[in-house]
Amino acid sequence: MTAELIAVGTELLLGNIVNTNAQYLAQQCANLGISIYYQTVVGDNHDRMTETVKTALDRSDVVILTGGLGPTEDDLTKEVCAEIMGFELVEDPHTRERIEEYFRGGIYKEIPSNNWKQAIVPDGATVLDNDNGMAPGLIMEKNGKTAILLPGPPNELVPLFKNQVYPWLKERQPEVLRSQMIKVCGTGESQVESKLIDLIDGQTNPTIATYAKTGEVHIRVTAKAPTEEEAKKLMKPVVKEIKNRLGDLVYSTKEDETLEMAVVRLLNKYELTVTTAESCTGGLVAGRLVNVPGASEVFNQGFVTYSNKAKRKYLDVSKSTLKKYGAVSPQTAREMATGGVFATDSDACVAVTGIAGPDGGSEEKPVGLVYIATYMKDKVNVEKYQFKGNREKVREQAVMRALDLLRRSILDNYR
Amino acid sequence: MTAELIAVGTELLLGNIVNTNAQYLAQQCANLGISIYYQTVVGDNHDRMTETVKTALDRSDVVILTGGLGPTEDDLTKEVCAEIMGFELVEDPHTRERIEEYFRGGIYKEIPSNNWKQAIVPDGATVLDNDNGMAPGLIMEKNGKTAILLPGPPNELVPLFKNQVYPWLKERQPEVLRSQMIKVCGTGESQVESKLIDLIDGQTNPTIATYAKTGEVHIRVTAKAPTEEEAKKLMKPVVKEIKNRLGDLVYSTKEDETLEMAVVRLLNKYELTVTTAESCTGGLVAGRLVNVPGASEVFNQGFVTYSNKAKRKYLDVSKSTLKKYGAVSPQTAREMATGGVFATDSDACVAVTGIAGPDGGSEEKPVGLVYIATYMKDKVNVEKYQFKGNREKVREQAVMRALDLLRRSILDNYR
Repeated sequence: MTAELIAVGTELLLGNIVNTNAQYLAQQCANLGISIYYQTVVGDNHDRMTETVKTALDRSDVVILTGGLGPTEDDLTKEVCAEIMGFELVEDPHTRERIEEYFRGGIYKEIPSNNWKQAIVPDGATVLDNDNGMAPGLIMEKNGKTAILLPGPPNELVPLFKNQVYPWLKERQPEVLRSQMIKVCGTGESQVESKLIDLIDGQTNPTIATYAKTGEVHIRVTAKAPTEEEAKKLMKPVVKEIKNRLGDLVYSTKEDETLEMAVVRLLNKYELTVTTAESCTGGLVAGRLVNVPGASEVFNQGFVTYSNKAKRKYLDVSKSTLKKYGAVSPQTAREMATGGVFATDSDACVAVTGIAGPDGGSEEKPVGLVYIATYMKDKVNVEKYQFKGNREKVREQAVMRALDLLRRSILDNYR
Repeated sequence: MTAELIAVGTELLLGNIVNTNAQYLAQQCANLGISIYYQTVVGDNHDRMTETVKTALDRSDVVILTGGLGPTEDDLTKEVCAEIMGFELVEDPHTRERIEEYFRGGIYKEIPSNNWKQAIVPDGATVLDNDNGMAPGLIMEKNGKTAILLPGPPNELVPLFKNQVYPWLKERQPEVLRSQMIKVCGTGESQVESKLIDLIDGQTNPTIATYAKTGEVHIRVTAKAPTEEEAKKLMKPVVKEIKNRLGDLVYSTKEDETLEMAVVRLLNKYELTVTTAESCTGGLVAGRLVNVPGASEVFNQGFVTYSNKAKRKYLDVSKSTLKKYGAVSPQTAREMATGGVFATDSDACVAVTGIAGPDGGSEEKPVGLVYIATYMKDKVNVEKYQFKGNREKVREQAVMRALDLLRRSILDNYR
């Protein structure tokens, strides 16, 4: 079954709101194994809406429309769909009663007359009661095509979809779609792809897709099958093969686990505490760790040592190191990591020093140069990076690399 | 001028991500006075993309496409547009050089060969250098129609659009639309609106729009006129009136100035240094300050004191205070702020302690309870907040309030 989404509303076209309904409905359809090839946003305009709905009904089995069901003259979705599909509009006594019920005991002395518009439905449509608003949802079927009309506000749309539309679609959808995430850090999208190219090229079911994120790559394996179990069975060998090929580059296979969550999970597993010593990332590594619920078990404190003075005072970086090699140097990174452990009695420390820009770069030490050091089991590992992009981008990448180096140090030393 | 948006990507069709690019671009076009009647999402599929782009070019002057410019075989946007508009694809030596530059000194030993695909451009297109990624943006013009191709990741798209596409579109838009931003912190959107309701209701030209952001509200005054000067003249009295009504709630009237930039600007102005002492925000306040270019003049170091031990050791919070009142208390916040100043010899300190959740809350001290203290001129000001939302949301709001309290303390003490 193929479906497509049409969101109706000038607010979306003006960028006043973001189209979260499209994401929600797309996710739900993906879960049901319904393929969506198009999503459209169109304004409250009769001709443009007609053109859009006609095109959608031509090329897809089901068209899900959101918005434009309200009481005002602008609201045209129902009227346009009825016109195109050849339905007559009639008053639905049940919906009229629900609207009366909705107003009863409310703040209005009388029901504004334009509200009755919401009791008008296409004759023969399935009416879906809306418990969180006045406009009901509608399912219109004709000649093998279906239009599903839903109210725009997410707090009306979501329960209506979940309780009434999802089961309706599921009954008509023979196959399920399941997917498995594999998250990778420390390499680029093209590198991942070149390692998996034969798998990707040969893909049919399951499919393999790669997505580039800042400092990481997500790989999604998706299978279609008559049952959930069969879909999982199809994915299993592919996921295993990808994990084998990528090895320690894989930091998680959970949809919701971020890199910092994976780090905190490992720290917890090996009962380690960590401290942070940050210069150019200015507290962001600590900030990411602390954002993980339960981080307090493994993270007690961190240092933001932006000035040389602070590096000396709190991390015991020696004056001669700073003078001879500078604040942005492997030597300083090394001493920051060591100093962080000794100052706090932690098991490990990750230290970051670099030039985030836009100023402060030189030919020898250009903007984007970052040293990251990890201290673990009396050993310090220092890595040098040359990041591209603006200040924010340099820092984002440095944070990701710092977390990843920490992760790998744990694996190297404790696994 | 009419424009329409096409986002290319299976991730959007599957609902893995939400289409924030569409909102950003729609807002920007609205600012420019460019009408958008359609937004579409389509997958990485040659035929469906061709159909979508053809339809869009038929009915709109400008089509802005996002995504599908990467190095993989899936990435087809450039190829499809070149085919439809009749452009030949050639290698751009300048872009090839930039890709080489991008990889130089990086973590990769050699450049994966599929990356060169990103140096292939339609012959005659305007190439827009991408400083935050490898795929350049492209402007293709033929027969009065324009296709603008932009990379999908928002941190690449936004700077590229802002610096290169926006000015390009602006030059071609006959009536000028000028807008003035007023940024407000420490109050909600409906409060701002109720203070300005008579101005908003009576608006025609200029228009006044309010946008709710996390912890702040943006007010945009927009005027349309034949010249920039006339537009500015129209806006001036309205902007003045809004600023008068909102007073110190306004932290900036510059489009690009964030709250942390405004804070650093004030610290610089009054030649003050500041330190941070953070518990539940775990380094994020420091991280925001350090993200401002030139922050090193006013910020030397910060503390992330997540554990009680760290609060005692680095900030000299007394054992009895922690025992009697707890780590999340006005007393502890006060001692953290004082301790921060004395430990570092700074002029000021902002301290944050609270319960971000999801655990750690009690009836007396529920999740979302946060105390923020500022130390300035031998005085400490402590404020209590009860934030709503999940862990991340609580922390985001706490960071915004901490920066804002710091800003107001500077105004109160030094202005």
